[in-house]
Amino acid sequence: MADLPKLKNYVNGAWVEPEVSSYLPVENPSTGEIIAEVPLSTPAAVGEAVEAAAAAFPEWSQTPVYRRCIPLLRLAAIFREREEEVSRVLSREQGKSLPDARAEIKRLIENSEVAAGMPVMSQGDKVIGCSFGIDGEVIRLPIGVFGLIAPFNFPAMLPFWFLPYALATGNTFVAKPSEVVPMTMDLAFQWIDEAGFPAGVINLVHGAKESAVALVEHPKVAGISIVGRSETVQSVNVRCAELGKRCQAMGSAKNHLVAMPDANLHHVIRNMTTSCYGCAGQRCMASSAIVGVGDEMYNKLCAQFVEDSKNIIVADPLDPKVADESMVMGPVISEASLERIHGLIETGVKEGATLALDGRGIKVEGCEGGHFIGPTVFTDVKPGMVIHDTEIFGPVVVILKAKDLDEAIQIVNNHRYGNGGSIYTSNGYWARRFKLETLCGMIGINIGIPAPVAYLPFGGMKDSQYADIKAQGKSIVKFFTEEKIIVERWWPEEG
Amino acid sequence: MADLPKLKNYVNGAWVEPEVSSYLPVENPSTGEIIAEVPLSTPAAVGEAVEAAAAAFPEWSQTPVYRRCIPLLRLAAIFREREEEVSRVLSREQGKSLPDARAEIKRLIENSEVAAGMPVMSQGDKVIGCSFGIDGEVIRLPIGVFGLIAPFNFPAMLPFWFLPYALATGNTFVAKPSEVVPMTMDLAFQWIDEAGFPAGVINLVHGAKESAVALVEHPKVAGISIVGRSETVQSVNVRCAELGKRCQAMGSAKNHLVAMPDANLHHVIRNMTTSCYGCAGQRCMASSAIVGVGDEMYNKLCAQFVEDSKNIIVADPLDPKVADESMVMGPVISEASLERIHGLIETGVKEGATLALDGRGIKVEGCEGGHFIGPTVFTDVKPGMVIHDTEIFGPVVVILKAKDLDEAIQIVNNHRYGNGGSIYTSNGYWARRFKLETLCGMIGINIGIPAPVAYLPFGGMKDSQYADIKAQGKSIVKFFTEEKIIVERWWPEEG
Amino acid sequence: MADLPKLKNYVNGAWVEPEVSSYLPVENPSTGEIIAEVPLSTPAAVGEAVEAAAAAFPEWSQTPVYRRCIPLLRLAAIFREREEEVSRVLSREQGKSLPDARAEIKRLIENSEVAAGMPVMSQGDKVIGCSFGIDGEVIRLPIGVFGLIAPFNFPAMLPFWFLPYALATGNTFVAKPSEVVPMTMDLAFQWIDEAGFPAGVINLVHGAKESAVALVEHPKVAGISIVGRSETVQSVNVRCAELGKRCQAMGSAKNHLVAMPDANLHHVIRNMTTSCYGCAGQRCMASSAIVGVGDEMYNKLCAQFVEDSKNIIVADPLDPKVADESMVMGPVISEASLERIHGLIETGVKEGATLALDGRGIKVEGCEGGHFIGPTVFTDVKPGMVIHDTEIFGPVVVILKAKDLDEAIQIVNNHRYGNGGSIYTSNGYWARRFKLETLCGMIGINIGIPAPVAYLPFGGMKDSQYADIKAQGKSIVKFFTEEKIIVERWWPEEG
Amino acid sequence: MADLPKLKNYVNGAWVEPEVSSYLPVENPSTGEIIAEVPLSTPAAVGEAVEAAAAAFPEWSQTPVYRRCIPLLRLAAIFREREEEVSRVLSREQGKSLPDARAEIKRLIENSEVAAGMPVMSQGDKVIGCSFGIDGEVIRLPIGVFGLIAPFNFPAMLPFWFLPYALATGNTFVAKPSEVVPMTMDLAFQWIDEAGFPAGVINLVHGAKESAVALVEHPKVAGISIVGRSETVQSVNVRCAELGKRCQAMGSAKNHLVAMPDANLHHVIRNMTTSCYGCAGQRCMASSAIVGVGDEMYNKLCAQFVEDSKNIIVADPLDPKVADESMVMGPVISEASLERIHGLIETGVKEGATLALDGRGIKVEGCEGGHFIGPTVFTDVKPGMVIHDTEIFGPVVVILKAKDLDEAIQIVNNHRYGNGGSIYTSNGYWARRFKLETLCGMIGINIGIPAPVAYLPFGGMKDSQYADIKAQGKSIVKFFTEEKIIVERWWPEEG
Repeated sequence: MADLPKLKNYVNGAWVEPEVSSYLPVENPSTGEIIAEVPLSTPAAVGEAVEAAAAAFPEWSQTPVYRRCIPLLRLAAIFREREEEVSRVLSREQGKSLPDARAEIKRLIENSEVAAGMPVMSQGDKVIGCSFGIDGEVIRLPIGVFGLIAPFNFPAMLPFWFLPYALATGNTFVAKPSEVVPMTMDLAFQWIDEAGFPAGVINLVHGAKESAVALVEHPKVAGISIVGRSETVQSVNVRCAELGKRCQAMGSAKNHLVAMPDANLHHVIRNMTTSCYGCAGQRCMASSAIVGVGDEMYNKLCAQFVEDSKNIIVADPLDPKVADESMVMGPVISEASLERIHGLIETGVKEGATLALDGRGIKVEGCEGGHFIGPTVFTDVKPGMVIHDTEIFGPVVVILKAKDLDEAIQIVNNHRYGNGGSIYTSNGYWARRFKLETLCGMIGINIGIPAPVAYLPFGGMKDSQYADIKAQGKSIVKFFTEEKIIVERWWPEEG
Repeated sequence: MADLPKLKNYVNGAWVEPEVSSYLPVENPSTGEIIAEVPLSTPAAVGEAVEAAAAAFPEWSQTPVYRRCIPLLRLAAIFREREEEVSRVLSREQGKSLPDARAEIKRLIENSEVAAGMPVMSQGDKVIGCSFGIDGEVIRLPIGVFGLIAPFNFPAMLPFWFLPYALATGNTFVAKPSEVVPMTMDLAFQWIDEAGFPAGVINLVHGAKESAVALVEHPKVAGISIVGRSETVQSVNVRCAELGKRCQAMGSAKNHLVAMPDANLHHVIRNMTTSCYGCAGQRCMASSAIVGVGDEMYNKLCAQFVEDSKNIIVADPLDPKVADESMVMGPVISEASLERIHGLIETGVKEGATLALDGRGIKVEGCEGGHFIGPTVFTDVKPGMVIHDTEIFGPVVVILKAKDLDEAIQIVNNHRYGNGGSIYTSNGYWARRFKLETLCGMIGINIGIPAPVAYLPFGGMKDSQYADIKAQGKSIVKFFTEEKIIVERWWPEEG
Repeated sequence: MADLPKLKNYVNGAWVEPEVSSYLPVENPSTGEIIAEVPLSTPAAVGEAVEAAAAAFPEWSQTPVYRRCIPLLRLAAIFREREEEVSRVLSREQGKSLPDARAEIKRLIENSEVAAGMPVMSQGDKVIGCSFGIDGEVIRLPIGVFGLIAPFNFPAMLPFWFLPYALATGNTFVAKPSEVVPMTMDLAFQWIDEAGFPAGVINLVHGAKESAVALVEHPKVAGISIVGRSETVQSVNVRCAELGKRCQAMGSAKNHLVAMPDANLHHVIRNMTTSCYGCAGQRCMASSAIVGVGDEMYNKLCAQFVEDSKNIIVADPLDPKVADESMVMGPVISEASLERIHGLIETGVKEGATLALDGRGIKVEGCEGGHFIGPTVFTDVKPGMVIHDTEIFGPVVVILKAKDLDEAIQIVNNHRYGNGGSIYTSNGYWARRFKLETLCGMIGINIGIPAPVAYLPFGGMKDSQYADIKAQGKSIVKFFTEEKIIVERWWPEEG
Repeated sequence: MADLPKLKNYVNGAWVEPEVSSYLPVENPSTGEIIAEVPLSTPAAVGEAVEAAAAAFPEWSQTPVYRRCIPLLRLAAIFREREEEVSRVLSREQGKSLPDARAEIKRLIENSEVAAGMPVMSQGDKVIGCSFGIDGEVIRLPIGVFGLIAPFNFPAMLPFWFLPYALATGNTFVAKPSEVVPMTMDLAFQWIDEAGFPAGVINLVHGAKESAVALVEHPKVAGISIVGRSETVQSVNVRCAELGKRCQAMGSAKNHLVAMPDANLHHVIRNMTTSCYGCAGQRCMASSAIVGVGDEMYNKLCAQFVEDSKNIIVADPLDPKVADESMVMGPVISEASLERIHGLIETGVKEGATLALDGRGIKVEGCEGGHFIGPTVFTDVKPGMVIHDTEIFGPVVVILKAKDLDEAIQIVNNHRYGNGGSIYTSNGYWARRFKLETLCGMIGINIGIPAPVAYLPFGGMKDSQYADIKAQGKSIVKFFTEEKIIVERWWPEEG
């Protein structure tokens, strides 16, 4: 392993070899091959990045907002030009299909470009005449250093839900990617280095839990954005409250896709397979629970969905023979994850669901070290079953039956999580009820993955999101700025 | 005490005698006379109010937003018509001057009327063409039952920083006023009863800490607004984070008023006395620390301010001889509070500040049972002294000297609290630096009490506010609504 | 006629008998009875009102925006309390049913209350850091005197599409109601007088064309809002452009209601009769052209609509026997109007449409002098026929057939006018296409009269509206304010 | 002249040789050299461009808003990369200094990038619950083909005040640059061709008045943006009103710069020379009238400004010896212009102003054919003199005296034009009065050229702007979109 690339942190505008607890191997999940080593930064190493960000804050925060957006746009242009390069790095370490990786990069670019609209988005308010001769204004000022703790499923896009907005509003930033997929951000920061941000404005630290905790605890960090399992992100949320810090905390999901009796089966199935198996089901916006409304729709759905699931090509996403196919599904992220999923399938069988399609034991030639599992479908699933109530985070779909829209909504609303939810129907009345009544932050109407574009907010309800400010778009400006209110009067006489 | 009025709770549209731990006497702080008894509601009694609010939520939340505003406007009209009546009740239980009480009622009305602009303020966003044939929208929906825990200093206005906005956005509400000043809300709810809200939409529970805790802990309460001492409100804030609830938590303050060398002394002094002694200094927007910049300004300030402070009339605010004077100052809220303030004055003397005016021992004829203390001024005060670093919440003013604007800003920014801050100058450059650089949520330029009007947000920084969404105006809409994002597509074929 | 009330102008806070060209009788269109005399103000008399408004402008424009809203809210409360009184005055002079009159008053109140949200709606923008040390702001300031020229069909509501917003933004106002229905505004201004506006802020002048022209031409009038026939309002629009004045010019309409094959016939018919016959069809939001899509829907529609039309009760709307019936239809506004409508019916017959229901010659007992015509329905109507291409402004409905949605949209879009348009369907795809593709300013989806609430804008496309700023809501703030942009820098050194 | 480049039109994505009335020589105003020939397109040739734009509209208007912004950002990146190249072309045909040309390109880029924030800026509004079960929404849709008629002073920036916003909102566009400076847009459209807009979306036609009229009159043009002399733009504005088209019409200016007695003379003079002589005074935001307040300030100003004016280097801006100096001033645009300016100087002398510095007769070596005039300063100027009341559009500055702020504001407000106005003072009270009371659209406080950044609106008052929607930023979205209001209800039953 002597020749393995050893990743570095990017601190204060330079690549540095951090003080580490240890190095961790980075694996290609399709092959099991070790492709790099990632440093687990010590709290001291994390502290250096925070100090660099804190030192860069005064000047950056006073840089005119439009000028702060110029390097962001330059960065977006670089990504657009080199989309293919970064997509392959991403695909290699994460295991998702190339088309999925490219789509992820596009959303990264979109977020950067939307954040570059900050000169308009962050404008304050002005009142002439609060009282006679007295004016008022609201201004939105940057706050300080923000930190990010990112999960493994979207190594590129996810940091860019937050980072471009933090920078455009005048804050400085320390990003900690998942230690499992550090190479995409390693490349991204090479391009960030080109884009022309002043030193210290944006920093990268690698590491696992210890580094994350150090970021949360550091007194010069003003706020944290974290995406991960609900338990983890909620503990960070509470800790931030104790420390008087801001927090965005996005957690787990189990998104329901409700097919009404009038749904167009062809569209539904096509959407479902994309939604359920994209990124091998490791997506907070994946639909992993399908609800067929009425016997007829339920039965057709079960039959057809199992059929179509069989067409998914399970493969190394960089295998040139399949790399551009849209129906390719790669491995899950790790052997541990695979075992956890296997265990849940066992549980599903035990609790009485019908295993209509079993993806276990699939072999991908030449990828014997990969963590593959094929499309897996349970039918006859009921609320209360573990496989329904748990986020499986793998290509395992559960299908439930509801007798009508009321029961379908009840299933959705009784679930612990409330990230996304979709309905399929051509009927405007059903669609309206679904969008108003379901306790999900993001609703799709005839859309399998209702992940909003970058100029709309992103966020869930119930245990899918703690702390209430959503990511992306106009909403996130509130998170990254402090509203200050000015009341002003001037007297005619000389002082 | 057999004839004392015994206050009731207002639950589900009716006055009810709650289950109580005990009854507490309510005192007129100007005379020491007991004027009523307030119930300390048990958790069960609090729960009844929450359940009523929860039961009223489905219908109220689906009532069109404009219709929800009609009773709010009716209520505002009632308050405008009967301003004098409620001002006297308020003045009697709280001790503040009648002009102060009237001003408080005006702000209550203003908040109700601004909240009635909710049909515009809560509008969501719409995007045609997120992608080909796909539209997006953001809608803002009410969340459920909100609770309020209010302090004693603004018995009327403070609940109305929150309540009108909660109702107009479609939530239902349970208010717990301070047990020390329950009579103003008792009267307010008689008028709320007239105004035409459906039963259960808005409820009143009396009580002290036990009731407050019950409100926070109740599983059907979605969020809490609390104003009080920083320690208390922060503990509620953390508890809400643990429970996954929303929280607005506004704490203590020590507001600095910086007089630059070119300040108009006449205006400054007039503003200061109003700001420092209004409500006997028991105001989170009071200026209680004055910073004179430069020897000359500092010296003139000290001399003149002490002189003018002597003109304050200390009296029972309802004494007909003085009731309409603007320079009247009533008692502090309680004997315990008086003793605490006396102790802090002792401390100030011990730590070496000059007690330039000593308000202790003042007698108000006919009010021997009242908790009076006269205007008290310390000069030669330095940061680090207890009397500077602590919120005294009484008519005790500390005066500091700074050599220039830099030092003045440093004094403000090093303080634990950051609610309001004011500068006096005719110079645009100094004013701009002060507004951008001081870490206070609300800045006054030539304004002694920079409390924003209802159509601008209200909130502080540092330990003056935990959780980041401000009260009043457009900002609070975020607190009382859930943003839901819809992504929508329709296919041409029949279902 | 010696005892007839002689209306006055309201100028500078007082009722004045104006200099007139002549007096015109005001008729009750249900009976032909003369009920008052209205002065036709000379240009000099109009000038007096404008001068009063101009003189009131400096103080009113500098009055804090919140204070300007207080009399507006008081006025709204008066209207709410006395809704019945003004509804009867309105019904008597205009001829519309009491339920219609009450609905009109409700919309008047709504507009006043929405305009009272101006402290939020008119807020400007603030940018800290346009460049280093340079800030920018946008403020919205009132402009001067605005004038209104109103039509006869909504004597109460229509002036309040504009007036409350003009006042709340700080402008002063001169309203000229239609000389045909002057009594409603006469009463409204008695209440305006009570509401507490300063003298001159809002003025009433009566008159016909000569007075209107004088208002447009007066050099101290900054802008005109006019609603009327397209030809008239366009000539005023052009004249305003020549004079460098602002103008809102809302014209004629012919609103199509498209029933898709899946439309619920019961709902459609119920909506149609309300929409077509309300206010005897004299409504710019009336649906006066129905398009049935597909043979089956078209045939059912024709049959059922004619049947239901027969149930309309034609009567004096104040006749106590029918006053509270919702299906009452009163007379059209005048004998001249009646003749014009009769002529158009003749034309329709001549151009080959089928007169399926003929409302001519209807007699209302005891109302022999009234201008009544019963529900009239043409079927087999084609685009290009005069009865389709002309705004009839009476209870005459034309029914067309289209083979599909494309053809229906084409019919709508080829029409000269584009005020409102409605579709009836349960299908989300058809609804989306209709709302995006039809060239109408206001679209109803399963709504017969898609007149938006006061907190949304109101306005049409094509020849239904000239000049592009819509009435009501946030949009109209642009019309009544001048955006001023400030760029600001302060230097540290003393001047 | 056989080898002269002959410019072409850019129509439907291709360069075409248009049908012309004739070709006009394009002159380098610094040397008199003819550098190209510009076609004067016939109405038929203009019509071709409009038809191409009309044909491109349906697809472009339905392209998702974010995708429409991608080529805009690409174009901005091209301009940023090749700023120097286009600056030199601009400087050569227009005569302005290279630093001025570069600044102009930066503002062009800024406008493109701000317009690329359209996915946020053009969002519509959504109301859930206008009434029970009824929702409302406002959407902003593109309108059709827009045309631009541009003046000669900002060949690059000025089209980009409008064009990027028109495109981003989904309209298509035909630009007609000034026939005097056509080469900058010729180059710009080569880059537009690279940027990836679909054919027909954006078109270039060259020509003079005849072509402009053809653009205004073409029935498929929905609106016109025009910048030029007040008389011209107002005639277009009126014509657009007659034709029912939208119009933005920005006219002449005479911007006052008021120096208060406390103004910092050093800063004022430095700002003034930049403001008065940049672009040889041919700038609608130039300060061309200076008002000294008080004898002392007036006298110092006159003396110092004349002194500093002498330091301006009059030269060919591309002369390598001076090309990067910031104090270089090039020629005015033409010999005709020079003569007009000479005539106005004669007039100024005749009407009794003091010609303190006379720039006539200046010689620039090697540039004998250039149209040069040196800095020219009149003192003792009074309102009413032609040199004060007229826009001179050359490097001729008039200095007036006012006794106090009131008189200074009166001078500004009595002037026919009201584009920009600036005050110099350190006093917040004076600054506030100036910004509120002066009738100018754009106000500078200690800023010589108060031209707002692209994310704030741009526009004047009085005869400096007809039609009321400003350029740039959020404001212009109103101009380029039609607000459509939807009212929507769905019934539970099947259709």
